[in-house]
Amino acid sequence: MNVEIKEKERIDDLQLKGLKIIQNTDGFCFGIDAVLLANFAKVKNKAKVVDLGTGTGIIPLIIYGKSNAEKIYGVEIQEEVFEMASRSVLMNDIKDNIKIINADLKDIKEVLPTNTFDVVTSNPPYMHNDGIKNPNDKKMISRHEVKCNLEDVIKAASILLKERGKFFMIHRPTRLIDIVSLGRKYRLEPKLMRFVHPKVDKAPNLLLVEFTKGGRPDLKIMDPLYVYGEDGKYTEEIIEIYSEDRSIDK
Amino acid sequence: MNVEIKEKERIDDLQLKGLKIIQNTDGFCFGIDAVLLANFAKVKNKAKVVDLGTGTGIIPLIIYGKSNAEKIYGVEIQEEVFEMASRSVLMNDIKDNIKIINADLKDIKEVLPTNTFDVVTSNPPYMHNDGIKNPNDKKMISRHEVKCNLEDVIKAASILLKERGKFFMIHRPTRLIDIVSLGRKYRLEPKLMRFVHPKVDKAPNLLLVEFTKGGRPDLKIMDPLYVYGEDGKYTEEIIEIYSEDRSIDK
Repeated sequence: MNVEIKEKERIDDLQLKGLKIIQNTDGFCFGIDAVLLANFAKVKNKAKVVDLGTGTGIIPLIIYGKSNAEKIYGVEIQEEVFEMASRSVLMNDIKDNIKIINADLKDIKEVLPTNTFDVVTSNPPYMHNDGIKNPNDKKMISRHEVKCNLEDVIKAASILLKERGKFFMIHRPTRLIDIVSLGRKYRLEPKLMRFVHPKVDKAPNLLLVEFTKGGRPDLKIMDPLYVYGEDGKYTEEIIEIYSEDRSIDK
Repeated sequence: MNVEIKEKERIDDLQLKGLKIIQNTDGFCFGIDAVLLANFAKVKNKAKVVDLGTGTGIIPLIIYGKSNAEKIYGVEIQEEVFEMASRSVLMNDIKDNIKIINADLKDIKEVLPTNTFDVVTSNPPYMHNDGIKNPNDKKMISRHEVKCNLEDVIKAASILLKERGKFFMIHRPTRLIDIVSLGRKYRLEPKLMRFVHPKVDKAPNLLLVEFTKGGRPDLKIMDPLYVYGEDGKYTEEIIEIYSEDRSIDK
């Protein structure tokens, strides 16, 4: 379907089942974090999925491309990017599969059914909201905990998930203690972690976590994921994640 | 000082200030974990130090060699290895510096003063005590949570430390959630973590943690430590840790 493309917007091909995405060069572009998370998430056939703070809708789009989910919801508080993500869904002709909702995840109970979903994903704002000068700046809202904090996200995930449902999140390793403590507070037990290192000899700067609602304590740490090799180029695993190989036939 | 050496015991040179240690080939030998922990611990001049579950006394001996601690206590529940560690201290003529105590760390309040120490270290048993067949087996007591569990160790560390004192521990990354949750329960905030990987592409199998008693939440993750290089030999960093370079002049 043809949709309107606004000033400063561009259409990118996701190299996945012909899917395309609208991005805004002035503020809303997806990063490697979202791609890593969408590929880390395990989504079974017929799964019901919610992505919290969906931004451009990149995570619902990749999950659509690589799974047979029944329905994927993306929740986004910022009207401008909600509207842009909705146009990406229309453009791909997949509005029966993905629905973008303009809502505050703190009100999630009034927006979506509780204790229902198989999978929740989130690539939330990473940074503490300490002394943000312009709380209405769009990039700030995506990156800093202006409109919601880590606890709001984890709480919303727990509310949405059915028992034994899975929550997949990417965040900064510096927030590990909060991630773990808040997870347990809301009955989301961390079961699998993967640290993402920019290079082999560097400390991890991203952390992928899989929680199970009501899961029993038993953490597994995966082999590390290195983004760049010693030659300064993407590692084979990153190239594979960005390739179409992992998608499924539609 | 000359001390008695029993059957199945041997004396090893620590390659550190001429220090020697008695080990028992039948059960009580120190591993790389203890060496990594002793080198990870930051011990200031005149510090008062306790090592919980000290075994052969390897950690007090290395800390003695690399710091100017005022006094280092090692607490060990097993009488046989307590006695062996005590002979190591005598053999090195450093009984004014290191004292090994035969006690249960669950009774730590009756053994050592509370809220007093600058540094506590521990390389505790790693494995859950599920269905241990022979709870009196000496190796079992060192490796499984037969006589004490992770909570006992963290609680004892918190009791001993003064405010802002540091607890350094090595454990399995699979216990990360418990380490973090129990730390917070006993006011020990994890401030620094270092994951130890057997090789570059392998998941970490050891985790070094520095806690601060009453510290504010702010976790830093260090660059990873790799034990073996691709050539199957120790990495340079491990060789450096095992060398005398890090010790101080006495």
